[in-house]
Amino acid sequence: MNRHFDEELDGLNSDILKMGFFAQEAIHKSVEALKNRDRALAESVISSDVLVDELELAIDEKCLDLIARHQPVADDLRFITTGMKLNAELERIADIALDISQRVLELADKPLLKPLVDIPLLTTLSKSMVKMAIDAFVNKDIEAAKKVLLSDSQADSLRNRIQKELVEEYMIKDISTIPRAIQLLLIARFLERICDHTTNIAEDVIYMVQAKVVRHHPEKLP
Amino acid sequence: MNRHFDEELDGLNSDILKMGFFAQEAIHKSVEALKNRDRALAESVISSDVLVDELELAIDEKCLDLIARHQPVADDLRFITTGMKLNAELERIADIALDISQRVLELADKPLLKPLVDIPLLTTLSKSMVKMAIDAFVNKDIEAAKKVLLSDSQADSLRNRIQKELVEEYMIKDISTIPRAIQLLLIARFLERICDHTTNIAEDVIYMVQAKVVRHHPEKLP
Repeated sequence: MNRHFDEELDGLNSDILKMGFFAQEAIHKSVEALKNRDRALAESVISSDVLVDELELAIDEKCLDLIARHQPVADDLRFITTGMKLNAELERIADIALDISQRVLELADKPLLKPLVDIPLLTTLSKSMVKMAIDAFVNKDIEAAKKVLLSDSQADSLRNRIQKELVEEYMIKDISTIPRAIQLLLIARFLERICDHTTNIAEDVIYMVQAKVVRHHPEKLP
Repeated sequence: MNRHFDEELDGLNSDILKMGFFAQEAIHKSVEALKNRDRALAESVISSDVLVDELELAIDEKCLDLIARHQPVADDLRFITTGMKLNAELERIADIALDISQRVLELADKPLLKPLVDIPLLTTLSKSMVKMAIDAFVNKDIEAAKKVLLSDSQADSLRNRIQKELVEEYMIKDISTIPRAIQLLLIARFLERICDHTTNIAEDVIYMVQAKVVRHHPEKLP
């Protein structure tokens, strides 16, 4: 039974990796759609969200089934319940990519307000934080999880810079830019929110590995 | 053992109710602070978030401990893991109240942009959705959970109305209002996000009670 159980835990890892891949793809495509004002690509992000939702439910069921059949305790139990939490976080991340795509549809028929510089930077950061956070879970790697937590302030300052520029250089100087600027401002906030979800994952991973609470206590970082 | 286990499950209910009470209090105070530009009240929401965080961790540990000691299956297992999910959702809701309070601090020294009408409406709606969602969990009440799901479109339309008014009646007509209007717009979005979290809870409750998936499938509402 034990070897079988280990194989099933490996299966959970693969499922989480797949979920993470879907989430990263969704982020990537939603911002590509923004850059190229590509309505079809934005719509494809929205329509493929159903696959992410189905995978989330399947992973959730698998976790419950694993607990019910194998009655794990201690580390194994914590691994599975952490998997359930990651699963929910990744589904939310994909949902945010869908939110971004909806903003893109609002913008698709209008001229691009400005060349995009900081939004692609924030996108790259958010995708790499998603990847790092999932790898931290799969490899039970505290160092990778810590890197995710340390990256979050970068995300905050990029978001603030984007917001400041949109208000001061566009909205206040030319009121005709306001509707488009608000969409970009929301997109920047969505991307920063994705980074927040990755820090939730990283905190859960550290808690799982060390059974030590860093969540809400950054000063206790190992 | 069974009676003892039942008592522990009741304890989990009480903890979730307490967590819900904290979340509702935080929402209420953050918007009261906005109405009265009350810096001290906004700061109290921010500083008391640590209590919510501690309660979240305690509930999480209690759930893991319940699973490890009693090795529940089927309904009981689903009840406990749903409790873990609610716990996380309620902590996020309290975090959003903290976000609102931070916006309030930005606004506290400035004259109020406009008499607040729709934001208090959205606040009342979000608090009642939180309460309904938790009651649905505690009473395993599908009807209450469905009401939460049906309320969400109200939240969306209030949020849209607030955003439209801020852009069209304030920002575009008077650029000096832009910084304050953006803060109010963000607060409206935060409140609507709280409502989204309550729909996550409601979906989890329906899933728990019926072992039937309505999550992501509103058309399958019983």
